[in-house]
Amino acid sequence: MSKLIECIPNFSVSRETDPVVFQGLVDVANGVPGCAVLDVQTDGSHNRCVFTMVGSPEAVEEAAFRLAKKAAETIDMNKHVGQHPRMGATDVIPFSPAMDVTVEECVELSKRLGKRLWDELGIPVFLYENSATRPERVNLAKIRKGQFEGMAAKLLEPEWEPDFGERRPHPTAGVTAVGARMPLIAFNVNLDTDNVEIANKIARAIRGSSGGFKYCKALGIMLEDRKIAQVSMNMVNYEGTPLFYAYEMIRALADRYGVRIIGSELVGLTPAKALIDCAEYYLKLENFDCRKQVMEYHLLDME
Amino acid sequence: MSKLIECIPNFSVSRETDPVVFQGLVDVANGVPGCAVLDVQTDGSHNRCVFTMVGSPEAVEEAAFRLAKKAAETIDMNKHVGQHPRMGATDVIPFSPAMDVTVEECVELSKRLGKRLWDELGIPVFLYENSATRPERVNLAKIRKGQFEGMAAKLLEPEWEPDFGERRPHPTAGVTAVGARMPLIAFNVNLDTDNVEIANKIARAIRGSSGGFKYCKALGIMLEDRKIAQVSMNMVNYEGTPLFYAYEMIRALADRYGVRIIGSELVGLTPAKALIDCAEYYLKLENFDCRKQVMEYHLLDME
Repeated sequence: MSKLIECIPNFSVSRETDPVVFQGLVDVANGVPGCAVLDVQTDGSHNRCVFTMVGSPEAVEEAAFRLAKKAAETIDMNKHVGQHPRMGATDVIPFSPAMDVTVEECVELSKRLGKRLWDELGIPVFLYENSATRPERVNLAKIRKGQFEGMAAKLLEPEWEPDFGERRPHPTAGVTAVGARMPLIAFNVNLDTDNVEIANKIARAIRGSSGGFKYCKALGIMLEDRKIAQVSMNMVNYEGTPLFYAYEMIRALADRYGVRIIGSELVGLTPAKALIDCAEYYLKLENFDCRKQVMEYHLLDME
Repeated sequence: MSKLIECIPNFSVSRETDPVVFQGLVDVANGVPGCAVLDVQTDGSHNRCVFTMVGSPEAVEEAAFRLAKKAAETIDMNKHVGQHPRMGATDVIPFSPAMDVTVEECVELSKRLGKRLWDELGIPVFLYENSATRPERVNLAKIRKGQFEGMAAKLLEPEWEPDFGERRPHPTAGVTAVGARMPLIAFNVNLDTDNVEIANKIARAIRGSSGGFKYCKALGIMLEDRKIAQVSMNMVNYEGTPLFYAYEMIRALADRYGVRIIGSELVGLTPAKALIDCAEYYLKLENFDCRKQVMEYHLLDME
């Protein structure tokens, strides 16, 4: 069994705004044996970049630490301007299970890394999502509210003592959030209508926040270029709320409003299991053991 | 890109009939770096065993050669008794694409190995399936007809000159068939009827041999323990004839006979792509790039 963890750290720099600092991070990420960089997204107006890395728990932890160290050495948040909310040079580091690993193991990893970020780099850390130590810290947006500029005051508020570190941001690197969560799947379903209100109604019905599926976030949007409405979703735990739950419920609700699903899309990476679970459902497979019967899992065990 | 090939060689010995010879083959298979043994099936009444191995083209070729050499050294076909048709100590060696490899590359590999089996071991070789050099050699059953005992005479017939080697079987190891084919997927669909004639009619409609899907072999069988009829299929090219073609056609035909699909099963290993293609169909995914968007393929690239 090869344990694999995905890590998607976000940094407050972009290739567009500072190519040298950006490249420094890329070089660090590519220099950790056992950790592979699958993707790097960079956005100039956000002044932000996002790495997608996968590797053994040890390699991924080491890569995340070295990146945070490099970011602290090369990014000065006092000078950072960008459209995306941010509170640190290394803004957020989520860990997710990729193979033969539980979320709980990712939580343990996030705590080990959080402690190191304070002990070795002097960066205060909030644990979020499944790693959160209290309910109001589950949501990253709540932790980050006030952004880098407001963190010095926020950390002095009684309820905002960091999980690791003292009540003062790193002078240039700010504050970092570290946590564990299931892989997020961006899944959108297109309707044959230009009435975005129908997509909104369906989104409201299926999302957990308003009574729908617990691990589904959804909103209705208009695809202006195609003149069609879309139910845009983040599936935040495909084991708890499989993709076909959302798809079949959207199909039923669309029918109720007299429209049809004309297509769907997955944005970015998805674990094979999330799709194989759909095949299992639609083909009515009996006694199917994904881990044993899908060849690629055996290939991954070979390493 | 890591090229991976699956190899499923069949040998005329079983753990039940000769544990020492059987174990000798297992040890050889496990001793080739870069080639992993995923599964070993052994059947005493067939007096036969089947290895499922995956690895780089070079490693898989080497493993297949070493196994054929070991089988030739330790199995005497003059003494072999078993219910399954067979013509050699190493009876048949199929190669299939597992990742980033075409069937054509597997054909080339089968020809390299076939030449080695004659040149270095003195075993005549027939190329079959996609590697066949003439139409009547595509089907293994036609090549193997007459079995080991009839091969000496068969090889002297004008149309049965081996593809590699002279017109005389190896005195103890007989003749071997080597070829390339797409991975075979055993896929069965269960109906809520005890009338096997309905399963037979559906099987006849969907299989290529009687006008149905080109890469689907099918027959109706009765599951006596469950008292239900089953359409039992071998999907011999899941890219040409996807699983959901068969499933949806069975659904339509079952409806025509007033019965329903109550479940299905996959027997043994399947490539992830065969199932992900089904998810893509049922979720109506647009612009989906399996190779780029499914994380596990990136993990396999890491090796």
